[in-house]
Amino acid sequence: MNIVVLGGDGFCGWPTALKLSKSGHKVTIIDNLCRRSIDVELSSNSLTNIASIADRLSAARLHGMDIDFYNIDIAKEYYRFVVLLENIRPDAVVHFAEQRAAPYSMISEKERRYTVDNNIPCTHNVLNAIVEVDTNIHLVHLGTMGVYGYSAAFGKIPEGYLDITINQTNEKVDILYPTNPGSVYHMTKSLDQILFQFYNKNWGLKITDLHQGIVWGTQTDETVLDDKLVNRFDYDGIYGTVLNRFISQAAAGIPITVYGTGEQTRAFIHIKDTVQCVKLSIENPPEDTSRVRIFNQVAETKRLIDLANMLAEKYNSQIEHVKNPRKEAASNDLEVANNGLRGLGLSPITLDEALVEDVMFIAKQLSANLRPEQILNSPEW
Amino acid sequence: MNIVVLGGDGFCGWPTALKLSKSGHKVTIIDNLCRRSIDVELSSNSLTNIASIADRLSAARLHGMDIDFYNIDIAKEYYRFVVLLENIRPDAVVHFAEQRAAPYSMISEKERRYTVDNNIPCTHNVLNAIVEVDTNIHLVHLGTMGVYGYSAAFGKIPEGYLDITINQTNEKVDILYPTNPGSVYHMTKSLDQILFQFYNKNWGLKITDLHQGIVWGTQTDETVLDDKLVNRFDYDGIYGTVLNRFISQAAAGIPITVYGTGEQTRAFIHIKDTVQCVKLSIENPPEDTSRVRIFNQVAETKRLIDLANMLAEKYNSQIEHVKNPRKEAASNDLEVANNGLRGLGLSPITLDEALVEDVMFIAKQLSANLRPEQILNSPEW
Repeated sequence: MNIVVLGGDGFCGWPTALKLSKSGHKVTIIDNLCRRSIDVELSSNSLTNIASIADRLSAARLHGMDIDFYNIDIAKEYYRFVVLLENIRPDAVVHFAEQRAAPYSMISEKERRYTVDNNIPCTHNVLNAIVEVDTNIHLVHLGTMGVYGYSAAFGKIPEGYLDITINQTNEKVDILYPTNPGSVYHMTKSLDQILFQFYNKNWGLKITDLHQGIVWGTQTDETVLDDKLVNRFDYDGIYGTVLNRFISQAAAGIPITVYGTGEQTRAFIHIKDTVQCVKLSIENPPEDTSRVRIFNQVAETKRLIDLANMLAEKYNSQIEHVKNPRKEAASNDLEVANNGLRGLGLSPITLDEALVEDVMFIAKQLSANLRPEQILNSPEW
Repeated sequence: MNIVVLGGDGFCGWPTALKLSKSGHKVTIIDNLCRRSIDVELSSNSLTNIASIADRLSAARLHGMDIDFYNIDIAKEYYRFVVLLENIRPDAVVHFAEQRAAPYSMISEKERRYTVDNNIPCTHNVLNAIVEVDTNIHLVHLGTMGVYGYSAAFGKIPEGYLDITINQTNEKVDILYPTNPGSVYHMTKSLDQILFQFYNKNWGLKITDLHQGIVWGTQTDETVLDDKLVNRFDYDGIYGTVLNRFISQAAAGIPITVYGTGEQTRAFIHIKDTVQCVKLSIENPPEDTSRVRIFNQVAETKRLIDLANMLAEKYNSQIEHVKNPRKEAASNDLEVANNGLRGLGLSPITLDEALVEDVMFIAKQLSANLRPEQILNSPEW
């Protein structure tokens, strides 16, 4: 298939582009390289030494992955994007081109506004370009589990749609799951859902929205092929996710910091499975386009304190509880349906089986690149 | 009170600014005058001869309404807006500053994108400015009945929140009414709701969202005081609402055009009551800020064909059924709760009592200004 990967230089986008290319698809990356400029802005760094996009593409070519690349800001260069899409005429567009860190989106009004002013026009421009170029293009979008919120009253989290009874009419219907985002970043994915719903309803667009859990891990089958293909590993308080923070701390022999009690339960998925899920979604487009197809892209749920304990035990680390910078419940249960992607063939990696391997890989990178002061720099909200 | 009216040069904003000023409030209008430039773009015109903003403000001053005015594009000039708000330190901000025509938002990708790129950053910038300047500022926003959609399964439309039972847990909760907008314009108001929900949750912002029905009528107690205070009357297929189209046609002695069967039921409110509702909302801010206060700003519901028949009978007009340019149900029932604003003292004008008067006023303006070719120029979607 002919596939465009928006945001294909990022943490999920890059290994996805490689996987799709390695699988025989024709791949074009569109990216404005903003994740790299945000590193400059934040004085942050990937623990791994990531190559320039030019070096990445050359190395990929050496390994049989011939990927095209265009530097376009889709939120701002709509017509340039349309002209390119018209030339490429892809079967599918994968949309990772959004500011993706909750803490970043909560630093100040500047980052709140950037996150909305980038993510919403970007998604809306992608939808409009598809309407203009070819309404048969399948749009695969990376959503987030964070659109659901974590309310016990709602029970096990279904895949996008919730079965309810309207009290005043006693009618049973299913509705888009009532959204309750916890940050401006998560809120933009809630807004995206409404955009998708309308563009699907009015133009019949074929859309898959993947509500992903917290991604962990770094390398995939393709990123290990060459040093210059290595993926990002963010460990700072802004872009690093909770598990990356734990792993960096365990490997560095410093205390593992847990926000609050650590009794927050979250859903996780390995980066190898992220890539696999996107591939499965593209290769199995929805047959029913009467509404947006929504999958939960998660492998399992875990309490954060249990993960911290698991790592602490293996690596003889201390655990340190620190004040939670976020407004969120101190403790919650979480059950998540993931039948959709399992039905397409996903058999996910679990934390128990693979976490050690990841720590060893990271440990090797650590001594040169780790800046401990970056680990706890999350803004409060 | 000290009140800022965003979009205070528009059809609802201008009479609201006058009413608030006449009632003794200190009023500042912020508007980028885009409704006037859209008239140029569309070759459309108000049937009434509206004065320039400078002449409007001078005339208002002569009648004891001393209103300040700043030409600011809030979507693009965030920091200029913040500085001004910091100087004014208002008690309330009324937010009308959005592109407000469903047909306009559906003309082409250009207008779809303008509507989203204007409305969402504008609302988000207003929220951020309030967070930065003073979280006690009460934000009163003009929403739309169009966020609800018109599904019979949901029963009588409540004020923003729907009582449901979650089938899998049997828990009873109330949720933000599941949105189902019918145009990109309406969709932006659905997105606004999610922005309000999050900014209320995270910063405790005091927000009233007014889901307004279709506004009819032109003049208010203040706009009749001087020719230069006259309000807009849009009759074209893009900005004119259904009732204005019917009235213009009846008064001009040409056939009344009904989209489809005319069995669509819609909610209506007179412009005098719009102004009154906004005043009531400002003067009675919500005491409970645990969530966004939502009112339905409507007087009554009517089937379009019944309105057409009423006018046709009084003015001896023909009725002509034309193809409906919109994707919407051919026929629907509609019941709407409006207890909130009635509880604050609203006693709305009904169509039966006041429609004749309005037609007479419009008829006087007609001969000079009406361009019949403008009446049926709605885009299809």
